[in-house]
Amino acid sequence: MDELPGTLGTSASLALRLGQFVFAVASILFMCVQVDFYGYTAFCFLVTVMGLDVPWSLTLALVDAFSVFVRSSYRQPGIISIIVIGDWVLSFLSLAAACSTASVADLLITSGGSFCSGKLCSRYQLSAAMAFLSWFLSLGSFLFNLWLLQSL
Amino acid sequence: MDELPGTLGTSASLALRLGQFVFAVASILFMCVQVDFYGYTAFCFLVTVMGLDVPWSLTLALVDAFSVFVRSSYRQPGIISIIVIGDWVLSFLSLAAACSTASVADLLITSGGSFCSGKLCSRYQLSAAMAFLSWFLSLGSFLFNLWLLQSL
Repeated sequence: MDELPGTLGTSASLALRLGQFVFAVASILFMCVQVDFYGYTAFCFLVTVMGLDVPWSLTLALVDAFSVFVRSSYRQPGIISIIVIGDWVLSFLSLAAACSTASVADLLITSGGSFCSGKLCSRYQLSAAMAFLSWFLSLGSFLFNLWLLQSL
Repeated sequence: MDELPGTLGTSASLALRLGQFVFAVASILFMCVQVDFYGYTAFCFLVTVMGLDVPWSLTLALVDAFSVFVRSSYRQPGIISIIVIGDWVLSFLSLAAACSTASVADLLITSGGSFCSGKLCSRYQLSAAMAFLSWFLSLGSFLFNLWLLQSL
């Protein structure tokens, strides 16, 4: 089988999905645990988008794992189309959420210590960085599956 | 000629490019004219990205206008590839800048009147809205030209 690495059902795709899942969970944890995030629209948006990203990437990681270890294939154009559209929408939303969070965190830091202490600010920045990494892997999955869809 | 509307050299593409140009210029004007925008990183980013978008969309609008009125064609895979990559990068940057500006403007509005007065805040919001519209048209151009590139 001459499979393109990174497409649905390959071990590279499993690694990409696990990376998305880990970074999305890390982004939510940095933002949520003992932080009063719901006072800012951008932070709520980030938590919402990453909360969508976690089940999506986990489901597709399970499908990939099943496909890698049990050797069955789900490569039908309908399924690939749904996955490509979902990745596309989620990658746009992730990028939007990451940029919003990064810019708001930057504004809070530059506007002085009354809004966030040093430790809290760095947690906002770490959360935005994790969201950027999750977006990057999501974009990779989207491009690989788009290539596969075109060749089917 | 059975041309796909919206691809390079069609009148629909000319309309898309002119729309991008107009919205990018409007976004810069709302942000820059008599506004102290360089105190905020997100607003500087928006002005930079829209400043890249203006010459790009103007150049491609001129190419489209030339192609529509003089009836010559530039449909070579190399040229289309460069345009697709440029549109892709610019659409990501536009989305990032628009989201950053929108979230910072929202934060400035909710954090009270000491940061921006009502008129200034609505100008930030209008600038972000124009950047979103410019991103949307840029995404349209990207998708049409990607489709053309695939069929060449």
